[in-house]
Amino acid sequence: MPTAEVDAEVDQPAPSGAARRVTALNRNDKAFHVVLAQQFERDAIEQLCTLADMIREIATTRQGTQFLITLLSHRRAMLYFIQPSTRTFLSFTAACQVLGMPFNDVRDRSTSSEVKGESEDDTIRVLSQYFDLIIMRHPGEGFAEHVAHMLNDMPRTIPVINGGSGKDQHPTQALLDIYTLSRSFAQQTAKVERRFKDNVFDGKTIAFVGDLKRGRTVRSLSYLLCKYSGVKLKFISPPSLQISDDILEYLNRNDTQYELANDLRTHIGELDAVYMTRLQDEWDTDTEKSSIDYDKFSLTADMTGMFKKDLAILHPLPRREELDQKLDATPYAKYWDQVRNGMWMRAALIASIFNVDIAIRDHYHAYHTY
Amino acid sequence: MPTAEVDAEVDQPAPSGAARRVTALNRNDKAFHVVLAQQFERDAIEQLCTLADMIREIATTRQGTQFLITLLSHRRAMLYFIQPSTRTFLSFTAACQVLGMPFNDVRDRSTSSEVKGESEDDTIRVLSQYFDLIIMRHPGEGFAEHVAHMLNDMPRTIPVINGGSGKDQHPTQALLDIYTLSRSFAQQTAKVERRFKDNVFDGKTIAFVGDLKRGRTVRSLSYLLCKYSGVKLKFISPPSLQISDDILEYLNRNDTQYELANDLRTHIGELDAVYMTRLQDEWDTDTEKSSIDYDKFSLTADMTGMFKKDLAILHPLPRREELDQKLDATPYAKYWDQVRNGMWMRAALIASIFNVDIAIRDHYHAYHTY
Amino acid sequence: MPTAEVDAEVDQPAPSGAARRVTALNRNDKAFHVVLAQQFERDAIEQLCTLADMIREIATTRQGTQFLITLLSHRRAMLYFIQPSTRTFLSFTAACQVLGMPFNDVRDRSTSSEVKGESEDDTIRVLSQYFDLIIMRHPGEGFAEHVAHMLNDMPRTIPVINGGSGKDQHPTQALLDIYTLSRSFAQQTAKVERRFKDNVFDGKTIAFVGDLKRGRTVRSLSYLLCKYSGVKLKFISPPSLQISDDILEYLNRNDTQYELANDLRTHIGELDAVYMTRLQDEWDTDTEKSSIDYDKFSLTADMTGMFKKDLAILHPLPRREELDQKLDATPYAKYWDQVRNGMWMRAALIASIFNVDIAIRDHYHAYHTY
Repeated sequence: MPTAEVDAEVDQPAPSGAARRVTALNRNDKAFHVVLAQQFERDAIEQLCTLADMIREIATTRQGTQFLITLLSHRRAMLYFIQPSTRTFLSFTAACQVLGMPFNDVRDRSTSSEVKGESEDDTIRVLSQYFDLIIMRHPGEGFAEHVAHMLNDMPRTIPVINGGSGKDQHPTQALLDIYTLSRSFAQQTAKVERRFKDNVFDGKTIAFVGDLKRGRTVRSLSYLLCKYSGVKLKFISPPSLQISDDILEYLNRNDTQYELANDLRTHIGELDAVYMTRLQDEWDTDTEKSSIDYDKFSLTADMTGMFKKDLAILHPLPRREELDQKLDATPYAKYWDQVRNGMWMRAALIASIFNVDIAIRDHYHAYHTY
Repeated sequence: MPTAEVDAEVDQPAPSGAARRVTALNRNDKAFHVVLAQQFERDAIEQLCTLADMIREIATTRQGTQFLITLLSHRRAMLYFIQPSTRTFLSFTAACQVLGMPFNDVRDRSTSSEVKGESEDDTIRVLSQYFDLIIMRHPGEGFAEHVAHMLNDMPRTIPVINGGSGKDQHPTQALLDIYTLSRSFAQQTAKVERRFKDNVFDGKTIAFVGDLKRGRTVRSLSYLLCKYSGVKLKFISPPSLQISDDILEYLNRNDTQYELANDLRTHIGELDAVYMTRLQDEWDTDTEKSSIDYDKFSLTADMTGMFKKDLAILHPLPRREELDQKLDATPYAKYWDQVRNGMWMRAALIASIFNVDIAIRDHYHAYHTY
Repeated sequence: MPTAEVDAEVDQPAPSGAARRVTALNRNDKAFHVVLAQQFERDAIEQLCTLADMIREIATTRQGTQFLITLLSHRRAMLYFIQPSTRTFLSFTAACQVLGMPFNDVRDRSTSSEVKGESEDDTIRVLSQYFDLIIMRHPGEGFAEHVAHMLNDMPRTIPVINGGSGKDQHPTQALLDIYTLSRSFAQQTAKVERRFKDNVFDGKTIAFVGDLKRGRTVRSLSYLLCKYSGVKLKFISPPSLQISDDILEYLNRNDTQYELANDLRTHIGELDAVYMTRLQDEWDTDTEKSSIDYDKFSLTADMTGMFKKDLAILHPLPRREELDQKLDATPYAKYWDQVRNGMWMRAALIASIFNVDIAIRDHYHAYHTY
């Protein structure tokens, strides 16, 4: 991971305690661990977005894809996905395949040696002997950070990427979301490298809708968005499922404007982007469920008349009724792009961890700009 | 997929309604979908057989295999195999590996997002963002055709291959079966390209034995065989498990000779090929089971004296008692070849879909003919 | 597999009946099967160790790894792992990936065709059509040997590697263990090729600790160690779990010194290597369990003062209380190396089976020695 270039003109918010903790974790020249969304400062985010753009453009030619698959063909990734997730799993495997990186997976604790009484730490220590990168998804809060510390203590240290841990953190989802937003806001900008000359988020209003209390994607993305000045956030949800106070405090500390609301229909006309999430009612009691007016947190085709011209609709998927299938074929729908962006962003992240981002930039400049 | 060359001398039967439907599905320049056996006309079948022969011959040298694995190393396949099938699954993965094509799979609905209330259509739309080809096996009748339509409607359209859907269709099995038959009938012909100068099926008698009512391989293969004039089919099964009327009507429409029978022993001496299938008695009631004389639908080593000199024995496997293991080591046994042919034929099909068949032909002519 | 060079100075013990049986199995020029630890004579072991060293050294550069992944990119491996084992499975897959060899797996009998009444022999015959190597782990005693015979009878014969069968044999574990021991004993020797000029095992005392009755790794390793003169073995376990008589007879026949004991603490000071294994009490009755004094068969950090300076601690893992985690960071701990050595040794074995060991040696001599 290249050190961020110092840019005196960008006013970066102060890193939080958690971000400082991860910085310490990564101050070892051994491996770059991706643990929390907050650990990425604005210039690191923008470098990753630019790199993702370059990879996708290189991949449009056969000669380009053949170049990409040589980049990490000499490394091996382990996807330790104890918490089921087809979507994130396949996104990471596709990202590995884009870079030619072989991988294998452990997806079921019952097939691993833990049934013979082995500690999970030992299982991961063993995996670190065969592979050069561990990408993990795990129900344990803070587990990826714990693993990063443990791997720093091994004679052979390899990097870890948090592919979602507990209810708290999903940093690569946050990166792909901000990538999707930045692409949507900057559609008019032709050259990928010019996008971040200006702050495309300046003056934009972005709403989060649905169950904001339990959705970790919204939490992680909020951390990243408050690194951009001039952005305005709206949190639209039933009062019982509103975004939690620690996020609001984080926004306050970073001088990010926000508003709480409880009806999408009264706000839709002001939005540049709407980030839909589902009301995860499989966790609700019947009492809670009956008290929610689902219509207030749904986006339907009959609302199109109220949309701003360039409204971008995002959704981390899977969706249910809250996002009308009739919107799929409209230009507002960015959620399929968002899925594909996840693959490119994850490829960019893995490339950066292994310092092949430089080779990608060189190739891009040699073949794709003039 | 190259357009079939017009050959005035070949008398093609008229396409059925289903075949016309698939032709319409594929008339879009977006992607070539493989949905039904009937969609393949005679010249397309023969081009695929020739291509499969070329791939297998190229693969006999290390330099050749190294050429082959560059062909699709820049693409990715998704094997969406919701209905379990180790055999077909591994055949397709081996075919992908022959062409250097990375792949991944979804084999269990319970690990996918559908448990969170996602529709299967959305699951497949998401997969279409990560991959360049979907190979699917699914219990739903007509599901592959439905998916092909859905993918045609996406901004990013990728091709689908039906790896078996419902009880009806298994087009790649039919292609590998006809490939195996054509190789068996043309053993004497040295050069692969000469095989189809003549109609090797002319005058051949082929019997299908076993449960013909429920075996979809027999149905699909029948569709393909009636594209060849001079072939004669025998359907040998207990009356309650005979081939269904829609197939017989199809044969009538296409002027293909056939005969129904119920004892293999009285017909074995006339056969050029016998296609054994098992009596799938796991589906039968006890009453049905007890009424069947299994000996009449079994092939045993003591029948060898009655075989024609070049009899070819095929079986889609798995087999049980209906096919005697003592025949395994005889030259009549073509069922192991048949398994391996499946890999080559599927590689030929995938290569055609991505238009790398041209590169294969060029390589073949440069190195393997003189 | 290259024929071992005749070396008049090395005094090889006579092959056992089992080893002779495997030699006959492999006397066919069709495929080299790895079935038993005993089948490897001393010079074959040393060639494999040297090859493993070369592969690991070549793999330290990107140019080297890029060379390695071309070696078997034209072959395909099937991992038929019916008995669950994440560790051995991933070690083999990583070894395949080191050599660029594509693979696939069958890990669950319920997804295979056997549920449709197919015999396991037929399943393996089918697999042999798609793949060029079968690596198998199976609960059946002698099953790998049976499969090797069956594959020799097929028109297309492919090699089999036993990745652990029944309670008896785990030859690749034995090879990686002897590789780890030889590396530990020869740390001072700079050049890999010099290691085996001398017998590094001469005068070394190696103890096996734990459940020696049921641990197949200890059995297989014992077979290999008795090919080295001057080595002294100690078997330290509760009397009810001592090494079985057939191994002791084998040692006697091969003039290998050994001693039985039942307390690690009274022997630790004399050891050059200690091979810890867990007391597999999941198999024990409560009566047996209560009679064991676990402290006598455990290695703890407070024993460090008694260690010889260069003691090597090995453990096949998973471990439990018998091996103190506080020892992990000490130079005595060789068990993480042992894990990684498994990958290199298995890569060496696979390379030898396909005769690409010669290319590896050539590459090594061209780039790594001067």
